[in-house]
Amino acid sequence: MEHTSDAVKERRGHRRVQDERWRTSLTCIEPNKILLRGYPLDEIMGRLTFGEAIYLLLMGEMPTPGIGRLMEAVLVSFIDHGATPPSTMAARNTATTGAPLRACVAAGVLGFGRYHGGDIESCMQFLDAGLVLVRNGRSYKEAADEIIERCESAGEAIPGFGHRFHTRDPRAARLFQMAMELELEASHVQMIRAVEMSLRAKAAEGTHVPPVNIDGAIAAVCGDLGIPPAVANALFIISRVPGITAQAQEERDREQPMRQIDPKDHVYDGPMQRRLPERRK
Amino acid sequence: MEHTSDAVKERRGHRRVQDERWRTSLTCIEPNKILLRGYPLDEIMGRLTFGEAIYLLLMGEMPTPGIGRLMEAVLVSFIDHGATPPSTMAARNTATTGAPLRACVAAGVLGFGRYHGGDIESCMQFLDAGLVLVRNGRSYKEAADEIIERCESAGEAIPGFGHRFHTRDPRAARLFQMAMELELEASHVQMIRAVEMSLRAKAAEGTHVPPVNIDGAIAAVCGDLGIPPAVANALFIISRVPGITAQAQEERDREQPMRQIDPKDHVYDGPMQRRLPERRK
Amino acid sequence: MEHTSDAVKERRGHRRVQDERWRTSLTCIEPNKILLRGYPLDEIMGRLTFGEAIYLLLMGEMPTPGIGRLMEAVLVSFIDHGATPPSTMAARNTATTGAPLRACVAAGVLGFGRYHGGDIESCMQFLDAGLVLVRNGRSYKEAADEIIERCESAGEAIPGFGHRFHTRDPRAARLFQMAMELELEASHVQMIRAVEMSLRAKAAEGTHVPPVNIDGAIAAVCGDLGIPPAVANALFIISRVPGITAQAQEERDREQPMRQIDPKDHVYDGPMQRRLPERRK
Amino acid sequence: MEHTSDAVKERRGHRRVQDERWRTSLTCIEPNKILLRGYPLDEIMGRLTFGEAIYLLLMGEMPTPGIGRLMEAVLVSFIDHGATPPSTMAARNTATTGAPLRACVAAGVLGFGRYHGGDIESCMQFLDAGLVLVRNGRSYKEAADEIIERCESAGEAIPGFGHRFHTRDPRAARLFQMAMELELEASHVQMIRAVEMSLRAKAAEGTHVPPVNIDGAIAAVCGDLGIPPAVANALFIISRVPGITAQAQEERDREQPMRQIDPKDHVYDGPMQRRLPERRK
Repeated sequence: MEHTSDAVKERRGHRRVQDERWRTSLTCIEPNKILLRGYPLDEIMGRLTFGEAIYLLLMGEMPTPGIGRLMEAVLVSFIDHGATPPSTMAARNTATTGAPLRACVAAGVLGFGRYHGGDIESCMQFLDAGLVLVRNGRSYKEAADEIIERCESAGEAIPGFGHRFHTRDPRAARLFQMAMELELEASHVQMIRAVEMSLRAKAAEGTHVPPVNIDGAIAAVCGDLGIPPAVANALFIISRVPGITAQAQEERDREQPMRQIDPKDHVYDGPMQRRLPERRK
Repeated sequence: MEHTSDAVKERRGHRRVQDERWRTSLTCIEPNKILLRGYPLDEIMGRLTFGEAIYLLLMGEMPTPGIGRLMEAVLVSFIDHGATPPSTMAARNTATTGAPLRACVAAGVLGFGRYHGGDIESCMQFLDAGLVLVRNGRSYKEAADEIIERCESAGEAIPGFGHRFHTRDPRAARLFQMAMELELEASHVQMIRAVEMSLRAKAAEGTHVPPVNIDGAIAAVCGDLGIPPAVANALFIISRVPGITAQAQEERDREQPMRQIDPKDHVYDGPMQRRLPERRK
Repeated sequence: MEHTSDAVKERRGHRRVQDERWRTSLTCIEPNKILLRGYPLDEIMGRLTFGEAIYLLLMGEMPTPGIGRLMEAVLVSFIDHGATPPSTMAARNTATTGAPLRACVAAGVLGFGRYHGGDIESCMQFLDAGLVLVRNGRSYKEAADEIIERCESAGEAIPGFGHRFHTRDPRAARLFQMAMELELEASHVQMIRAVEMSLRAKAAEGTHVPPVNIDGAIAAVCGDLGIPPAVANALFIISRVPGITAQAQEERDREQPMRQIDPKDHVYDGPMQRRLPERRK
Repeated sequence: MEHTSDAVKERRGHRRVQDERWRTSLTCIEPNKILLRGYPLDEIMGRLTFGEAIYLLLMGEMPTPGIGRLMEAVLVSFIDHGATPPSTMAARNTATTGAPLRACVAAGVLGFGRYHGGDIESCMQFLDAGLVLVRNGRSYKEAADEIIERCESAGEAIPGFGHRFHTRDPRAARLFQMAMELELEASHVQMIRAVEMSLRAKAAEGTHVPPVNIDGAIAAVCGDLGIPPAVANALFIISRVPGITAQAQEERDREQPMRQIDPKDHVYDGPMQRRLPERRK
């Protein structure tokens, strides 16, 4: 959502505006016509997926097919993480009072605090700091060592590494693999790999080194796609809303109102592990 | 999100649970493993779109390719409707105070009140009431006349018809066309068509008859896909979150803090109308 | 917040308005002047308590000293109910993610759903239904029997009776006592007493009869003060905000981020029971 | 909400806790008993005002009568500021969609962003920085000059000074007057006075010098009462909730649903300026 001078905008085929009204460049509404970033919404329906339309809306241009696929994977990777995240608990506690679904979703979204999902933005800044060093002549390894050192001397955790539940985050591995196969990985992925290697080299033998988590993987992949941190943050919020919504809806459907919800006391009773149908592979 | 007996669940390959813990059937979290409705999340990444994963999460099963395409169109159709909806205004007014993006999104979601998006659920109930009459022997025309009459004698507007801005909603037309081409239209679409014809027949000559709006189209299409009203309501919330997010982010990027926002005083300065690239048609 | 004709308003000393602008009668802002319902805010400061100012803002007129005292008691009665209500849990789950205090408060307020505090409004309607019967000639006892019968045949709980924790709600008893001492009890309190007696008479011997709870007491007292149900609902929201705020703030101060919060697993470690200082009695 | 060691707590008459459960010191709930910071809630009702109970809940001890009166004035001073603040607009835009009152209140609370009310906390830190200098031997004048200089060289506005509407904030003047009369003003008020004088001395002749605003006055007064910045922030949220609630309720009562709300296009039609009744002076 970069905003450029009027002259540049006009050259690019943007509508010229000269009055004092406030401006929006997202969606144009006229009688019987809706343009999303210039494209008629009814023409987009059936031709762009929801994930591609989200990219178009946030970034201003249609994604290439490869970027579109990676975008879908980023959005899918965060869609839900079970019943225990505090944001999900906030949504379920709201649902149990009989509040309408939108109130539950809002309560859940409010739980994306500094410690929950905030790592994407700080990991992007962390990697960017490393890439500044690389542009100034340092090797990736040297840059990684230096930004790790900065974190450690400030007493901060390395953003994008480690997870409460997982010792190896399956989502991160898959996202890196897709970025490689789609030939969309670049300096940010290289930088986070260098950080991972430095962390391993520094660890005492036998120590568990926290691996890249999904926040770190999204940060690196979004960085390589040229997505600014604020938009990556927006993607994170958008991607988890379906999970929060489904969890709140399940609370309404399956549980008694006004119950006291212990996040640790639940059990999964859904389908056992199953394989994707052949045509999906 | 229908919930069935333990015996039935077990036959269907659901995990057996016999203790007192509370239960969830959405997402199974184990160390280094995340199952979404039974499918490993990392296998879904790159194979299902975000829209298909939303369907899987809410409905419990993978969509067929046709249902998947219709689902994407439903989600895209609602993605944004410009700067003026009150929900968007709530998000922008929150953004102008310097609140974080997630607070703006939550404020926006809270503005999906009874008069804003609520029509989907009430239109589904309205169509279902008509279909009960059809199953009891009435023709579609007779059923349409009767449910219209019920609304009118209760002094209520016909849900799913008419729009503040549009006399012919381009999104509704496109959704019906897609449902037809994908051979997914059934009794709900037939019912809403019958209501539309009855309204036209009853209108005095020269009167404008409000056409089916996007709420009505989504209600009919979701009805024909077997999506329950509560899930259609969830889809509506999910689909508009990207628009609210982008609008709040634009407010943060382009405008001065603490401004007084008149929704009528804005102008679109984005790209002029453009065509989809050839490969997208 | 009743709204009357322009002629009546003018007679009452309201500002005359004849143009097309939208109108508010709450607070007048002019340079260096703030009028709350006509009273200069700086003159009110130090002369009205917060509770009295809340009454003035919501009802439009200054409370009498007696009504002011009862209003304070209503607001104090609901100020907090410990760590377990789902609204408080929603606020604490939001706080544990590192979200700012206002986000926690908003998440908590969203948890005043139908089953949590909603009883005030429905109890007021329940008592009003009884009082209609009384005005039409029925005795209080007959009216009580009839409205109880209506609830029971509709399969609904009697609103304003029973509590998860308390078999005798100390707040309700105190509120009734104050209303009596201040000579502010009238037909609504009489009605709820009649309902209580009917419930006892109908109960099998040895059965526990759920007593009036704080929702019921507030409903009866507010009814007798002429406070409309919508304003009583507003009072309920306002009164619990300090509790939610304090609970969220305590979570931020005392607990680790991103913890899993079991509402049943906590213990009180504050001051042991103590007496009010002499001057306060 | 300071938290002290178990030994200290026990000496002070706090309940002893030795197990692994999480702890709260706010409200103790037992069957038929509710203790707020140790005091039975039903004994507090009718004896403490709502404002005093808020102080007790947030600070842990009963206020003295003087502090209680100042607390009420702080809470009253912020209760509403008309229809135009963005937080109020967010609440009204939510109300116009037909959302329930609590959703409107939540949307309004979310609009207490960095630029709206955030000044209280930053002004407290600003004054505290000056008082550190005073404790190290600087005069109030020298300290004021230095902290102003720091702000200006960082390109930041002086927190607690200036207002969009008012050139002299009547609420700030009143609060300082009360603090003086109640003999509760101390070093923070002295510090903000010194800053005000420095700003005037530095200003070119004929320039308008922005006066202390209500945020600044609350910051100074709360500082002198020993209220920590986080609690002052909580007081701010609590104090504006009645205003947001009343504004949202008025929107529901007086306006058409789904209207487009221009904050600048309204007019006040409430009571004309009136005097407090004699007994209130």
